[in-house]
Amino acid sequence: MIVVMQRTATKEQINTVLSKLEELGFRPHPIHGVVKTVIGAIGERTQHTMESLELLAGVERVVPIMQPYKLASKELVEAPTTVEVAGRTIGGKKLAIIAGPCAVESCSQLLETAHAVAEAGATFLRGGAYKPRTSPYSFQGMEEEGLKILARAREEVGLPVVTEVINPADVPLVAKYVDILQIGARNMQNFTLLREVGRSGKPVILKRGLAATVEEWLMAAEYILSEGNYNVILCERGIRTYETQTRNTLDVSAIPLIKQQSHLPILSDPSHASGRWRLVEPLARASVAAGADGLMLEVHPNPSEALSDGPQSLRPEKFASLVENLKELASACGREV
Amino acid sequence: MIVVMQRTATKEQINTVLSKLEELGFRPHPIHGVVKTVIGAIGERTQHTMESLELLAGVERVVPIMQPYKLASKELVEAPTTVEVAGRTIGGKKLAIIAGPCAVESCSQLLETAHAVAEAGATFLRGGAYKPRTSPYSFQGMEEEGLKILARAREEVGLPVVTEVINPADVPLVAKYVDILQIGARNMQNFTLLREVGRSGKPVILKRGLAATVEEWLMAAEYILSEGNYNVILCERGIRTYETQTRNTLDVSAIPLIKQQSHLPILSDPSHASGRWRLVEPLARASVAAGADGLMLEVHPNPSEALSDGPQSLRPEKFASLVENLKELASACGREV
Amino acid sequence: MIVVMQRTATKEQINTVLSKLEELGFRPHPIHGVVKTVIGAIGERTQHTMESLELLAGVERVVPIMQPYKLASKELVEAPTTVEVAGRTIGGKKLAIIAGPCAVESCSQLLETAHAVAEAGATFLRGGAYKPRTSPYSFQGMEEEGLKILARAREEVGLPVVTEVINPADVPLVAKYVDILQIGARNMQNFTLLREVGRSGKPVILKRGLAATVEEWLMAAEYILSEGNYNVILCERGIRTYETQTRNTLDVSAIPLIKQQSHLPILSDPSHASGRWRLVEPLARASVAAGADGLMLEVHPNPSEALSDGPQSLRPEKFASLVENLKELASACGREV
Amino acid sequence: MIVVMQRTATKEQINTVLSKLEELGFRPHPIHGVVKTVIGAIGERTQHTMESLELLAGVERVVPIMQPYKLASKELVEAPTTVEVAGRTIGGKKLAIIAGPCAVESCSQLLETAHAVAEAGATFLRGGAYKPRTSPYSFQGMEEEGLKILARAREEVGLPVVTEVINPADVPLVAKYVDILQIGARNMQNFTLLREVGRSGKPVILKRGLAATVEEWLMAAEYILSEGNYNVILCERGIRTYETQTRNTLDVSAIPLIKQQSHLPILSDPSHASGRWRLVEPLARASVAAGADGLMLEVHPNPSEALSDGPQSLRPEKFASLVENLKELASACGREV
Repeated sequence: MIVVMQRTATKEQINTVLSKLEELGFRPHPIHGVVKTVIGAIGERTQHTMESLELLAGVERVVPIMQPYKLASKELVEAPTTVEVAGRTIGGKKLAIIAGPCAVESCSQLLETAHAVAEAGATFLRGGAYKPRTSPYSFQGMEEEGLKILARAREEVGLPVVTEVINPADVPLVAKYVDILQIGARNMQNFTLLREVGRSGKPVILKRGLAATVEEWLMAAEYILSEGNYNVILCERGIRTYETQTRNTLDVSAIPLIKQQSHLPILSDPSHASGRWRLVEPLARASVAAGADGLMLEVHPNPSEALSDGPQSLRPEKFASLVENLKELASACGREV
Repeated sequence: MIVVMQRTATKEQINTVLSKLEELGFRPHPIHGVVKTVIGAIGERTQHTMESLELLAGVERVVPIMQPYKLASKELVEAPTTVEVAGRTIGGKKLAIIAGPCAVESCSQLLETAHAVAEAGATFLRGGAYKPRTSPYSFQGMEEEGLKILARAREEVGLPVVTEVINPADVPLVAKYVDILQIGARNMQNFTLLREVGRSGKPVILKRGLAATVEEWLMAAEYILSEGNYNVILCERGIRTYETQTRNTLDVSAIPLIKQQSHLPILSDPSHASGRWRLVEPLARASVAAGADGLMLEVHPNPSEALSDGPQSLRPEKFASLVENLKELASACGREV
Repeated sequence: MIVVMQRTATKEQINTVLSKLEELGFRPHPIHGVVKTVIGAIGERTQHTMESLELLAGVERVVPIMQPYKLASKELVEAPTTVEVAGRTIGGKKLAIIAGPCAVESCSQLLETAHAVAEAGATFLRGGAYKPRTSPYSFQGMEEEGLKILARAREEVGLPVVTEVINPADVPLVAKYVDILQIGARNMQNFTLLREVGRSGKPVILKRGLAATVEEWLMAAEYILSEGNYNVILCERGIRTYETQTRNTLDVSAIPLIKQQSHLPILSDPSHASGRWRLVEPLARASVAAGADGLMLEVHPNPSEALSDGPQSLRPEKFASLVENLKELASACGREV
Repeated sequence: MIVVMQRTATKEQINTVLSKLEELGFRPHPIHGVVKTVIGAIGERTQHTMESLELLAGVERVVPIMQPYKLASKELVEAPTTVEVAGRTIGGKKLAIIAGPCAVESCSQLLETAHAVAEAGATFLRGGAYKPRTSPYSFQGMEEEGLKILARAREEVGLPVVTEVINPADVPLVAKYVDILQIGARNMQNFTLLREVGRSGKPVILKRGLAATVEEWLMAAEYILSEGNYNVILCERGIRTYETQTRNTLDVSAIPLIKQQSHLPILSDPSHASGRWRLVEPLARASVAAGADGLMLEVHPNPSEALSDGPQSLRPEKFASLVENLKELASACGREV
């Protein structure tokens, strides 16, 4: 930690900071520059320590040196983490292809989609039973009924299933039915929920919040990891910018950034990132080329009848051709579909 | 609702859209331009309807005409809503001044602050018992113990109290102790929580999410209102932008925008918006001049010892002078402190 | 300047950085922490030095300690700068009120507006003769003809005039006709133009770029100042964010931030910031309350006939009432209109 | 164009709008909904028309139906444009690889880099002779001397050269020496400069402004095209967002968006987009996978000695391996290196 003193800081103010640092258990090293004094401080800083110091008279600002996350950091675990789910691996050579409708709408809709995506090469089935919707007047999901349909689809088509959980109280119920719990973008900093899925021990897909920095995202992962659940998979799904032609802006740089800082696997969700099915394939390809460990894709047998997020859903034929086209690209990236 | 057809749309595609619109209960009015056809559609649209239409062959996009919120809209209720809390009014001529520490840290810390802010002119006391913190290793609040301290402070100094609730399961407990429930920025789209505070019937301060549009914010209010709880108070607290010198960017325009679209009262929180105590007073003044119905301000007896958000906290003396300086400004704005 | 070494940095790498720093004329002070080494470096850094160091093996990042701007800094000049123009002062107790149409459209339009705004209390007249327009098919301004009309209006109504210059080659011509040169948001980093207006010696209003940080803005001012022209006036006019209900987002915090870091006067332009005339008055008030030294306001005798930016223009009557209403507020802020 | 009336609009106000539309040469089609009236208007709208209408009493807003750009639009020219430069094609099957240092620093530096990149597979040489720098105290380029060095390098290594022009007055001089003129991000809306390079007839690379929408970018291209210069190449180079770990955020979605709306070729510049050489290769790969027609890459023989943008420059060996690794990926995308 580095404490930068104001150019007008008095000797007395500098001494107060030095004493405070010692009192907090740091070893301070003052450096007197021509214009300003800066103080290096050796020891374990917390957010709280930094804020306290910033308020002492004569202090201009405090610069952190170490990253705030630990368990998510590559500095702790150098080898990439792989998550095993029902005999499948996320984070290995084979790309995870998680496909299905935004929302479970009926048994027939889900089964039809499940069969189609399984045939086309999906490795996991997704479908929402609890839907966080901007409007209270929109369809909110089939809830437990939807979970049962997901479980049945798993049996029928043999794909492990992923679903979003939004209420901490529902975690045990949802965990009973599905293979992977998903935390949606709006809940990335719902800390009660993060702890709860941490305690469940189930693999968790943690989507990036739409205004979250990469660091905040890793800190959210840290909440789950710190409960002893190491099966965390990150998923980039677009951030909010001023551009209005896409629903969000896929931050493709986040993929290599995460790879350089963390051992956790990372997926990309081009459907939510763009909100437009015509962009899904190019963004899926860009994500794999940037190093993503897999894709989450919305597929619906009849997008114009979908009860949620129709415009970003692919028809099963389109999904099948996307997967087919991906093969050569994946191989050029040292991956396989 | 207006459906814009692509310039290459065939007569058949246009007819399909017209039939679909009729089937959905709309009265369609096609207008054939030189290059494109657009179709006006009279009837009640939903998000779902719009998305379905966007997917029909030949459709370029769908433009909504009516706002998606109803109960929050000035079109429904023209007169400004005022919220009555323990004999005080939010939304009237008198500015609501809600002051106190970010977190309740101890009984003595809270009582000391409570007495100081009450004396200086605060009309409500705030203090966090449950703290949503970016890091799992930061102080997370005193929980029920903190609520008890808040209740005791109310008794001692006579100010109604405001506190944040973050877990839907805690709503009944928190509602038992305090006068106003606060939904923090990170939870603005935690819909389970919004419904729960809606059902509680307690007055709710709904902070704007840090990447939420004004429309999404009003839709979040709509969740609470649609549960029959009309005591909703909005609070602008800064949005996320590229500027790094402030923690967030206070969107002061949101204040008149809300006033023009909604009947709900709106506060401003310059402490969280800036993250720097030196900016709190000018931003508080700007907010009142823009038409805010009140302010939320962090005050701590000793900011450099605060367990949370020290750098944005005012010392009690500074708070007292801010309130004093506000008097003439408030009067110039037809308000009083 | 602080050089943070990677945790895996070898002794050799640290020594290379130390030698490099000495070679560049710095006095290095290494601090060996438990996990990482950081090196304080005393001396004058440049962007270039920092970038060079960042590339040495074992270096994680370089943290600047001193601000990059000098002449614009409050650390150099403590007293606020006032700019004198034709007997009027910008930056003093009296607010500068710069009003007029976005574009000069005809002699009668400008004279009519000029008389109206002068009567209502404007202290400067504005009007564009060269218009930077997003579309090549939009009206681009009357050019020299427009400058002549501005000069004539000055004579008739006695207000000094402000106009934008967009081509470096036009600076001498424009400077001949008007009292203050304006650099628009799109040209904030048009460095050729900045140098040219710097050389002209004329007072300059420098608008903030719509994605510029406060630091970049001060660096742009530094370009003008470094040519020996100290008559620089900053103008906040909104930044680009994800919010779509306003054309831009007025960053009202920039006003106190500039006041805390620089001695230069700062204005606010609520017309361009919002793009909606209904928001102009509340934002003008917020700006004054936050400490702005004046306002730039678009006024047009008949906004719906305006050739440019109609929706953000006030009618003369509305402008007159805004100025009238501002009096009490200004007085509550220690200012006068 | 669609005019949406306020719900409180009177019959008279609606009639005024209808007359105004007719007066402006439109054929109006009113649709009376249950709550609001909307008016479809057939005819050629301009920005100005829309703004005028927005100001009429009773009008809520005006929704454009047609895109504002014409010459850049795929609706005008369906086949992709290819730009021929000195026997090479940009926009065809072969990827354009434009490589070289950010700034020309000396003859030996440029020649060394030129030989290295030519050998490694670059198809164009880049180097800046005029540098737009944030600080007036940074190196500003070698100017005409730099142009001469570029011309000499072209002769020696046989690669066509690209350089940025920043002052309209320099266009003829720069055009004399180089093969492609580049407009930098900061000058994307420097309309005088756009017209000037338009008139020069030389091929132009137009970088996206760091806060420009895709539509504004195409409008900037329209300025060049409307001068009769059809050799315009777009280049995505990152947009400004709140994320601080990258200098900018590469908007990879812009690549397919441009492909869907325009016939112009599009490149990607992962060096400026990320500002970090460690991210250049993954982002280059993502761009090609998303459909980019080529790449602009910074290469410097000794990045830590570079006078500009060192941290984002690749060493020649790294560039060579990037190009080598790209071969298989390009082939998987139907391209070649």
